Amino acid sequence: MGLLSMQRNLVLTLTGPDRIGIVENVTGLLVARDGNVEISRMARLGGEFAMLMLVSVPAEQVAGLESDLERLAAQGYKVTTTQARQTHAEAHPGWLPYRIEVHGADHEGIIQEVARYLSHRGINIESMDSETTPAPISGVPLFTMTAEVAVPPDLADQGWEAGLEELSSHLNLEIRVVAMR
Amino acid sequence: MGLLSMQRNLVLTLTGPDRIGIVENVTGLLVARDGNVEISRMARLGGEFAMLMLVSVPAEQVAGLESDLERLAAQGYKVTTTQARQTHAEAHPGWLPYRIEVHGADHEGIIQEVARYLSHRGINIESMDSETTPAPISGVPLFTMTAEVAVPPDLADQGWEAGLEELSSHLNLEIRVVAMR
Repeated sequence: MGLLSMQRNLVLTLTGPDRIGIVENVTGLLVARDGNVEISRMARLGGEFAMLMLVSVPAEQVAGLESDLERLAAQGYKVTTTQARQTHAEAHPGWLPYRIEVHGADHEGIIQEVARYLSHRGINIESMDSETTPAPISGVPLFTMTAEVAVPPDLADQGWEAGLEELSSHLNLEIRVVAMR
Repeated sequence: MGLLSMQRNLVLTLTGPDRIGIVENVTGLLVARDGNVEISRMARLGGEFAMLMLVSVPAEQVAGLESDLERLAAQGYKVTTTQARQTHAEAHPGWLPYRIEVHGADHEGIIQEVARYLSHRGINIESMDSETTPAPISGVPLFTMTAEVAVPPDLADQGWEAGLEELSSHLNLEIRVVAMR
């Protein structure tokens, strides 16, 4: 664990039975290998517990960590690890960050329609969270989504947001776009 | 796709190369199988793109969807699917929801320490997000975490939060606990 040891970045996913202590268990395996959680997203999803993490770990501990994690398979957990190609470098230097917020009645395909609109303009999705929750009184499913995107510099002042407004009235959604800096 | 077809809930994870269009691609496979995204968490993590989703899909489409997703392996994506045992039922009826917010200097093991504190009291983590970001001027890594937890009813008014304050001064963190309803 010397300061000079090379760090590797791993993307880790885990899905399996929800039980008290699973987060302590998995992060304990990381700490024992001198690993650090850089970014995490975890949630109970329909009775399963799922984790998504970017972890940094000394290069010489990667194989050991992977075998520690594989042992969780015996407890019913599906685990994947992927060595990340880039570390913390921006994938798109000079691209402009925007946040997109979407609210409305849930129906199949909303995420795909928004994602298609963005990809056809060369806009990259940096992160995206969505929920479907029943409305307080009616119980009608409501959809909310927040995405952070990177917009190519030559597109930034070309009114790319206008088409999202058209899409929002077509899909009967409320869509808000906010420049992040 | 009749209204009477049984719905299945699947937890889906995907990790692989970040490229424009990957979200459209994966959600397009779901829509083609009459699937709906109930909850999603997606992020670019160190050059990789990672997705975590709870999807509902007609029972007769599950096998087809799984084989559609397996085909993404040829493009370098690691995919797991898990049939969720429970649907939308609360895992812990009557337990009380709290939000825990943590801010401070990053060091290995913060998540494990907080998770251990909670699991030893029988408190369940419903969701947890964390980030490590460099501080604006000093560049020192800062840690932020937000967790939603379910507290057993007999523990709720027993001052379980007090121990977290002790933990926060021990770890030199700011920890805030908010009852959610």
